[in-house]
Amino acid sequence: MLARRAAGLATSFPAPHFPSELASQVIPFDSGFAFPGVLPDLTRFAQVALTTHREEALQYAPTQGNPELRAWLADYMNADGCNLTARDIIVVNGAKHGLDLISRLLLDEGDSIVVTAPMYFTAIPIFRSFGVQFIEVGQDRDGLRVEELEEIFAYFEAEGRRPPKLIYNVVDYHNPTGVTMARTRREALVDFAVRRGVCLVEDNPYRRVRFEGDPLPCLKALDRARTVFHVGTFSKLIAPGLRIGWIAADPDSVARLMQLKSDGGTNPLIQRMVLEFCRSEAFAAHVVRVQTAYREHRDRMVAAVRRELPQAAITLPHGGYYLWLSFPEHVDCDALARSAAAAGVNVIAGTRFFAPAVDASGRRRAPPRNHLRLSYSYATPEQIDAGVARLAAALRSQIAA
Amino acid sequence: MLARRAAGLATSFPAPHFPSELASQVIPFDSGFAFPGVLPDLTRFAQVALTTHREEALQYAPTQGNPELRAWLADYMNADGCNLTARDIIVVNGAKHGLDLISRLLLDEGDSIVVTAPMYFTAIPIFRSFGVQFIEVGQDRDGLRVEELEEIFAYFEAEGRRPPKLIYNVVDYHNPTGVTMARTRREALVDFAVRRGVCLVEDNPYRRVRFEGDPLPCLKALDRARTVFHVGTFSKLIAPGLRIGWIAADPDSVARLMQLKSDGGTNPLIQRMVLEFCRSEAFAAHVVRVQTAYREHRDRMVAAVRRELPQAAITLPHGGYYLWLSFPEHVDCDALARSAAAAGVNVIAGTRFFAPAVDASGRRRAPPRNHLRLSYSYATPEQIDAGVARLAAALRSQIAA
Repeated sequence: MLARRAAGLATSFPAPHFPSELASQVIPFDSGFAFPGVLPDLTRFAQVALTTHREEALQYAPTQGNPELRAWLADYMNADGCNLTARDIIVVNGAKHGLDLISRLLLDEGDSIVVTAPMYFTAIPIFRSFGVQFIEVGQDRDGLRVEELEEIFAYFEAEGRRPPKLIYNVVDYHNPTGVTMARTRREALVDFAVRRGVCLVEDNPYRRVRFEGDPLPCLKALDRARTVFHVGTFSKLIAPGLRIGWIAADPDSVARLMQLKSDGGTNPLIQRMVLEFCRSEAFAAHVVRVQTAYREHRDRMVAAVRRELPQAAITLPHGGYYLWLSFPEHVDCDALARSAAAAGVNVIAGTRFFAPAVDASGRRRAPPRNHLRLSYSYATPEQIDAGVARLAAALRSQIAA
Repeated sequence: MLARRAAGLATSFPAPHFPSELASQVIPFDSGFAFPGVLPDLTRFAQVALTTHREEALQYAPTQGNPELRAWLADYMNADGCNLTARDIIVVNGAKHGLDLISRLLLDEGDSIVVTAPMYFTAIPIFRSFGVQFIEVGQDRDGLRVEELEEIFAYFEAEGRRPPKLIYNVVDYHNPTGVTMARTRREALVDFAVRRGVCLVEDNPYRRVRFEGDPLPCLKALDRARTVFHVGTFSKLIAPGLRIGWIAADPDSVARLMQLKSDGGTNPLIQRMVLEFCRSEAFAAHVVRVQTAYREHRDRMVAAVRRELPQAAITLPHGGYYLWLSFPEHVDCDALARSAAAAGVNVIAGTRFFAPAVDASGRRRAPPRNHLRLSYSYATPEQIDAGVARLAAALRSQIAA
């Protein structure tokens, strides 16, 4: 009776992962929620939207999104090295909705897509629901290993199979690894995609949540052949609950995405609120506040991990919400995540971030079990210290047992 | 390169249909927008959401929706004859998103679904994007002709084909015909669905936009075997721009819908605003204002049509936004819609409301060309008089030509 894509789903409800559902003493290093202290005061922007722009805010919105917001987004990305107009942008209900729409545009059952190992785990079920096969590409501290793509595509050619349809990546402050992709790798990735005629899906939620250093060009800024679908969002910079994101792509693809976006338009009240906030003097100050707060959280967590968990190797993330811990190979982080939860600190085992994938030679490998992802976004600095100490104690008990 | 579902889409942008995009002298009888005069003042509810409930309103929302809103919705539907709890409800981003999620749950490429002829046209591309075949069932002034369903299912059986997966209908103030399905037909439809094991998708946006008479039980109120997916929305009762709807179904289906709804949650600020509005004393007064305004619009349009277009047969709609005009068979309403637009009144030709369907015996018929849908929701009473006069003049010129 059910569709194939739905029949395989478990009938149990997903586990709770909203901080509000947790006991107050639990420390949520598993949460991608915003730090409550940096949520902006949006009351006056809501007031303006519901009075000055009342009819716009309450009627259906245009499918492509508020034209003024699209123009603002084009300017915002152009100040960051892109070359866009409002026509190149479609507003969507958050980045996940953007990934879903791009999948609808590009993917048929049986297609292959290339993803990093590990990858942003919420994207796994989205792509999976389109019946695709995941092909893994490795990463190092410079990001996605572009040279492996040649192997992957050569393998497909040798097997007489259709090559992968898209390559999915988070180039800035990768989730979960925190890695920033090196500039030469970015250029090589775009070159590869143009040469092979494969689409790049650049998911870039953390770009402005940057702590130090100059930004490297995003893939869209390097795009010169309409190869890149850039997915942006206000969730990590302003507030997750806004559910406003965007896709920047070529106008033909944007037109097709509009036809696939049969949802009555993205919320016009929220679009107007975001636009008024972004245009106000409050926006720049807010960005600084966000960067400062999460930099402090990162520094606090890095110091705590170096102090309490010297066995864990880390790469310092220069932005974003996450710290990726790599333990010696014998440490089982699935078990550690369970014992940490029992000790009052929620973390996510690294195995959760690996798609059910095959590598360049078609082999399926078990994901490594010696990684953990810690989020420093939602916890307070005091909770960060206490949570890392609890995690270290859980590891000591595991080793002693 | 594109997915099959996307490759067939035209690359041109959809025609503008937002009143704000039209010249001010154009009368929009094509618009499902709300009458601006009945859009409520939501500023104080936004204020409460962004202050008292600030963190809830700005962090991610639970996938199933705000628990208090779901409890309110269950009560709201129970007062209307249902027997639901908050567990039976999932909040979605408007009714169209609800139809999309139900399609993901139930439909595979090549499945068949039963729809009325004519049907709500925005649902056509949604279902179509899942690669289904549409099977038409007739309607009369008592609604969907349930006895034809026996023929359809017998035909499938005789052909050795899998029977249709779902039956889609708008039972209250049908779009576009305005028909209210008779009580005995509703009961027979639910009986049929239970007997045949087919799902009923009840799309019910206009139920509270009722002008006279007692409400008949909705299909969900008659459901006793978890057969009905009820899709509700606040778009037509409060404001289209809210993008808040819901699905009421059995808890197992709700759990699966949650797993398919990988969108980061429906906007929590808007959910809280709607909840505060619905719980306030303003809500009951608002419903009366909406019913009164649209009743006046309907009466004005019905009087104008009877006066100016006596050749058009109409069924008086007892609720909703639309009047369905049936002209003598020789009148070509595709041409009439074009000449009306040239004369400054936008209407939608009836042919647009017929899915690319086959009938019970597998035949494909051209849709009848002698119908028009007029919307009385957005136009002012004065525009209603002027618009119907322009339409009558366009018809006279067409006959004279």
